[in-house]
Amino acid sequence: MKILVTNDDGPFSPGLAILREAVKGLGEAITVVPETPKSATGLGLTLHKPLRVNRITSNDDFIYLVSGTPSDVIYIAMNVISGKPDLVVSGINIGDNLSVQVILTSGTIGAVLQAAIEGVPGIAFSAAVDSPEELEEGEYRNFILRVTRLVTRIAIEEGLPKGVDALNVNFPPIIANEVVITKPAVKRFSTSVVKRKDPQGKPYYWLYGSPIEAEKGTDVHAVLEEGKIAITPLSISNVFSSVPVSIENLVNKIRMELKKQS
Amino acid sequence: MKILVTNDDGPFSPGLAILREAVKGLGEAITVVPETPKSATGLGLTLHKPLRVNRITSNDDFIYLVSGTPSDVIYIAMNVISGKPDLVVSGINIGDNLSVQVILTSGTIGAVLQAAIEGVPGIAFSAAVDSPEELEEGEYRNFILRVTRLVTRIAIEEGLPKGVDALNVNFPPIIANEVVITKPAVKRFSTSVVKRKDPQGKPYYWLYGSPIEAEKGTDVHAVLEEGKIAITPLSISNVFSSVPVSIENLVNKIRMELKKQS
Repeated sequence: MKILVTNDDGPFSPGLAILREAVKGLGEAITVVPETPKSATGLGLTLHKPLRVNRITSNDDFIYLVSGTPSDVIYIAMNVISGKPDLVVSGINIGDNLSVQVILTSGTIGAVLQAAIEGVPGIAFSAAVDSPEELEEGEYRNFILRVTRLVTRIAIEEGLPKGVDALNVNFPPIIANEVVITKPAVKRFSTSVVKRKDPQGKPYYWLYGSPIEAEKGTDVHAVLEEGKIAITPLSISNVFSSVPVSIENLVNKIRMELKKQS
Repeated sequence: MKILVTNDDGPFSPGLAILREAVKGLGEAITVVPETPKSATGLGLTLHKPLRVNRITSNDDFIYLVSGTPSDVIYIAMNVISGKPDLVVSGINIGDNLSVQVILTSGTIGAVLQAAIEGVPGIAFSAAVDSPEELEEGEYRNFILRVTRLVTRIAIEEGLPKGVDALNVNFPPIIANEVVITKPAVKRFSTSVVKRKDPQGKPYYWLYGSPIEAEKGTDVHAVLEEGKIAITPLSISNVFSSVPVSIENLVNKIRMELKKQS
């Protein structure tokens, strides 16, 4: 069992330290992460410039550093460092990764979705905390460590069911014992833009997301309102095959007019 | 009808010039694009640094430039430049955007998916060509222009069916008159890594994708093997709700062991 450990927060995140500790003994683990934080890079790949690979020593073990995104990490790890892994675990992210909006933008989840495209199952772990310090020590850290290890071990023992490519695991901001299977909300944040002026008087803009009210029955509600551990199954092959209605009428109109033109 | 025109190839792409020409007269069009090419940035957002906005004049009209990704463009356009549009058109991308692998990584499609999360319908256009020069003039350019205008006009007249958030339109490398509704293949490229040495003898790595054989019935096959125009409907709300099997068994095992621990 070859386990690739990665994240989008870089080598110095306390979430990475927990994840590395959690998988110890469950297989042959290798850690490869972006050399700098790459939050919100989604499934982005670096194709327009080359990548560098370095490594540092941490707890008698190596952490490999890639000068790119979490998705770059997947390909560099597979092709340069360790060969194809049997499982990718990603995180533990500082901040939740709930809702379609956040799932598709998250680098933590981007890594496991990119691995899923390569046929490698993955588990993304995220904790609904505001700062890295909350994962540095204490009861809450122990809770995250214990459940991360448990989920990873059982996923290895049982395997993911056919058709499920990855699990998106989100921890509430409090210690919890209840685990629920969730579907993602569409949206988690209302995005606004803050305008400021630099010392020269020229404008610059910050993107900023304010939480919106969580709808019942969604991953956001389960974690943030009910305080439960949420597991959302992710499927790559079905991701865009489940459009609920047909576009036949629309396309027929296009076909008719195309025919007239030609 | 307020139309936001964007892309991921930046202001100087001939694909953008075609798209701007195609939507002329169909509504009040405003063009906002990344100031530099941002291919393969997916739905990535810039949250760790501020953004700048500039504008240039092109054909008696403005092109607004954002120092970020296509997804950043959506939020800057909506919040700073033009207000919420009624439709986003993105492209015309130099190169196809076929398969789940490419759809989730594409900046061109990232823009329309990000708009879809905000409730704004979108159409992404991509041409299966190898270089910008192929879109600069001639019969092929006219074909792309004509069909892009037709698809946009009919989408505006008819609206997208409820549940369809965006259309992913891909043009084959030859002039075509047949339009098919497609489902995305999972994978389009086999990704490898090319290792080189810099003048100092230190290694660097290029990610590189080699096309794999197209499966019949997929978007890749329709465009690249059959030479047809492919339209794939994309749905944001169903994107991760359609996992074909239950993870109840797996999660029950996790629940049982959690109970033992606590």
